[in-house]
Amino acid sequence: MQIPWEYRYAHRTQRMGSSIIRELLKLIEQPDIISFGGGLPAPEVFPLEKFQEACNTVLREHGAQALQYSITEGYRPLREMIARHTARFGLEISPDNVLIVSGSQQGLDFIGRIFINRGDRILAESPTYLGALQAWNAYGAEYITVPLDENGMDTSKLEEALRAGPKFIYVLPNFQNPTGVTLSLERRKQLVELADKYGVPIIEDDPYGQLRFEGEHLSPIVVLDSEYRGTNHGGYSGNVIYMSTFSKLLAPGIRLAWIIAPVEVIRKLVQVKQAADLHTATFNQMVAYEVGKAGFLDEHVKLIRQTYHERRDVMLEMMSELFPPEVHWTKPQGGMFLWGMLPNGMDSTEVLKTAIEKKVAFVPGVAFHPDGSGKNTMRLNFSYSTPEIIREGITRLGLLLREQVGKGS
Amino acid sequence: MQIPWEYRYAHRTQRMGSSIIRELLKLIEQPDIISFGGGLPAPEVFPLEKFQEACNTVLREHGAQALQYSITEGYRPLREMIARHTARFGLEISPDNVLIVSGSQQGLDFIGRIFINRGDRILAESPTYLGALQAWNAYGAEYITVPLDENGMDTSKLEEALRAGPKFIYVLPNFQNPTGVTLSLERRKQLVELADKYGVPIIEDDPYGQLRFEGEHLSPIVVLDSEYRGTNHGGYSGNVIYMSTFSKLLAPGIRLAWIIAPVEVIRKLVQVKQAADLHTATFNQMVAYEVGKAGFLDEHVKLIRQTYHERRDVMLEMMSELFPPEVHWTKPQGGMFLWGMLPNGMDSTEVLKTAIEKKVAFVPGVAFHPDGSGKNTMRLNFSYSTPEIIREGITRLGLLLREQVGKGS
Repeated sequence: MQIPWEYRYAHRTQRMGSSIIRELLKLIEQPDIISFGGGLPAPEVFPLEKFQEACNTVLREHGAQALQYSITEGYRPLREMIARHTARFGLEISPDNVLIVSGSQQGLDFIGRIFINRGDRILAESPTYLGALQAWNAYGAEYITVPLDENGMDTSKLEEALRAGPKFIYVLPNFQNPTGVTLSLERRKQLVELADKYGVPIIEDDPYGQLRFEGEHLSPIVVLDSEYRGTNHGGYSGNVIYMSTFSKLLAPGIRLAWIIAPVEVIRKLVQVKQAADLHTATFNQMVAYEVGKAGFLDEHVKLIRQTYHERRDVMLEMMSELFPPEVHWTKPQGGMFLWGMLPNGMDSTEVLKTAIEKKVAFVPGVAFHPDGSGKNTMRLNFSYSTPEIIREGITRLGLLLREQVGKGS
Repeated sequence: MQIPWEYRYAHRTQRMGSSIIRELLKLIEQPDIISFGGGLPAPEVFPLEKFQEACNTVLREHGAQALQYSITEGYRPLREMIARHTARFGLEISPDNVLIVSGSQQGLDFIGRIFINRGDRILAESPTYLGALQAWNAYGAEYITVPLDENGMDTSKLEEALRAGPKFIYVLPNFQNPTGVTLSLERRKQLVELADKYGVPIIEDDPYGQLRFEGEHLSPIVVLDSEYRGTNHGGYSGNVIYMSTFSKLLAPGIRLAWIIAPVEVIRKLVQVKQAADLHTATFNQMVAYEVGKAGFLDEHVKLIRQTYHERRDVMLEMMSELFPPEVHWTKPQGGMFLWGMLPNGMDSTEVLKTAIEKKVAFVPGVAFHPDGSGKNTMRLNFSYSTPEIIREGITRLGLLLREQVGKGS
C-alpha cells in the first residue's frame, strides 16, 4: 500500500518554495543565453594555480588530517586567520568568536534555526537578499521592511519599524544584493544606536565588503557596535552577528564562509551545525588557509576589484547609451550587482519573458521584496560576463526596453 | 540595552543538545589517549596519491567549473556514476533519483525537515545511530523502538510497533552503528512487506554496506522493495529512501554523501537543500567523480576491507583473552564498530570515567538508546586504531573491566 509522498510531508514543507534565482541558473547552462541573472563571480579571476598549489601542499604535508573528520567549529588556523583579518578592520576578536560554515546560505539557515519561531518578524531592507528570505520563510518568518535609497536602509524609518518588535534586523551594508547601494557611515551609527535602544540584535551580511573599487572603506557595523559599547578588547560580545564568505574572494565552488558572533551564540550555532552536517569539509578549510595564510588574498582581491570595476563601467556606459530615458538605475561603488527601475506600472517579469526569447536574462526585482512589491524593478549582475558579452547583452536589453517602454507606459 | 542572547533563541533550540560523540572526538586530539570512541576511518587507507592526482586533473581540465557555483541536485556525472553503481547492486535508477548531500548527517537532517512534525514518532532500532537522533530531536521527533539481536532488528516485534503509527522506519541494515550487527535477508523481506502493509516508508541508512569482509552480500532493502513491487525498470518509485556516503569509501573530510529516492521526494529535498546551503561543494564532487569514474574505488575498497578485517580480528582476539567472562560482545562481519555488553547493573559511563584516567576511551551505549536504556552497553570502534594500538587499548580496558566487573556485580 503505497501512500503518496505528499501526504507524508511535514507542515513546514508548505512554506518552502523553489528559488527563481536557482531556476534561472539553469538558463546559464544554455550557452547562447547572456545571463545577468545569476550572482556568479567571474571565472577568469579564480586563482587556479595558487589553488592547485595549495591542494598539493595540504595533501603532501597534512593529507591524513585533511581527509579526516574534524571539529564542528572549524579548522583552528583558518579561524585564527579570520580573526587576524577582522582585527585589520578594527575589531579584535578571538578564534572562538568564529564559526566556519559551508557557505553563507548555511549561515543564514542556522540563524533562522536558532532565532525564528513561526510568526516572528524580521526587520529587513526592501528589497533584500532573496537567499535570506528563502532560508527564513522555511521557519515561518514574517517581515517588517524598511525602504532603502542610494545611501542604503532609510534609518529615519527604522525606529517606527523597531517598535513593531522584530526578532532581529537583517542588513547588507556594502553593495547590497540586490540593489548595489551602500549604507552610509552616519546611518550605520544610527542603526547601531537604535538597535541597542530597542534591544534588537543585528545580522550583518557582508559578502562583498572587500569588493570596493571606488570611494572609501566604511567600518562594518560590528566594529561600530563594538566601539559604541567600548568593549573592543579580546573577544567580541556585542549586539551584532557578522557574516562573510570566501565565495567572492576565492571561489564559491568550495562552499566556505564564516560567522562572527559572541561566544555564547557561536556555541549555540555549533550545536546546530553538529546536527545539520557535523562540520564543513576539512580539506576545503585547509586549502583556503593554505591559499590565504601568507596574504595572497589581499593581492588577489585587487585583480577582482579591477575586473569588476571595468565590467561595471562597461555596463553603466552601455545602459546610458541604449536604455530609454524613463529607466533609472543605481551606480554601485563595488560588489557584483546593479538595480534597474522601469517606469511604474511596468512588470519586469513580463519583460524577462521577451528577454529570454532575445537570449538575455536578469532577475525580476519582485523576487527580492518580501511584500511582493517592486514589480517594475530588476537586478543586473555585472561580475560574471566579460565586457564584450556585457556590451552585447545590454544592447539586446536596450532594444527590447525601448520597444516595451514605448508601448507599455 | 543588551538583552541576554538566551532570551532570544527559538523554542526549538531547547531540544538541541551537544553530541557526546563530538565531545569525545576532542579527546582524540590528546595524543596519549587511545580512542575506540570516534567513528573515524583508518587514515592509513586514504588514497592520497589518487586524490591528489584527481585534484590536479579537475583543476587543469575543468578549473573554472570546479570553483564555480553549481546546481543544487549535484554534479550530473557523479549522479550518473552513482546510478551505475546502484545498478550493479540490482536496482536500475535514474540520475534524477539521486541527490548529492554534504555528508550523511545532512541527509538525515533533510529527512527530518521534510517529514517530521513535532511529536511525530519514528520507528527505530534500539540502539540506533546517535547522529540520526541528534538530527531528528531538533524537529521534535519521538521514538518507537524495536530491539535488535545478532540478526538485526527483531521483525517479530515490528508489526506491533507499526500499529503505533510511525512517520517512517529508520534502519541501518549492514554492520549497524552502534552494534555492528546485520539484518538478515529474511528479515529484510519481512520489513519490506510490513512497511508496505502499513503504508509506512523506510529510511535505509547504509554507510558501511561495502565494508563487508566476511559472509555474503545481502541485497539492500531498497532493491528488495523494488523487486516486491515489480517496478524495477528505469527509475525508482517505491517506499524506501536509501542513503550512502563517500566518507567510508574515500574520505570523510570531503563531506560527500548521496540520497536515492523517488523523483518527487528528491524534488522536495532539492528545495530544502537550496535554502540550507545552495549546493554541495562543486570541487569536491568533481574530484570524487574523477577518483571513482574508472572503477578505482572498487579496487580501493578491498584494501579498506582487508585493513578493517585485520583490526577487527585483533580486537576480538584481545577481548577474548583479556575481558572478564561476564562481558559479551558482537562479532561484526564488516563495518567499523562492535558492541560490548557488561553485566546488568553496571554503568558503562562510570567505566568510561576510569577508562579516560587510564587513557583509553569508548562511547557509552546509553547514548544510542532513544529511551535512555542500555546503561550497561558500550560501542567500540576498530577501524581507526592500528593493530598495535588496539592491543594496547584493549589491554588497558581489559584490566580495568576485570577490576570493575569483580567489584561492581
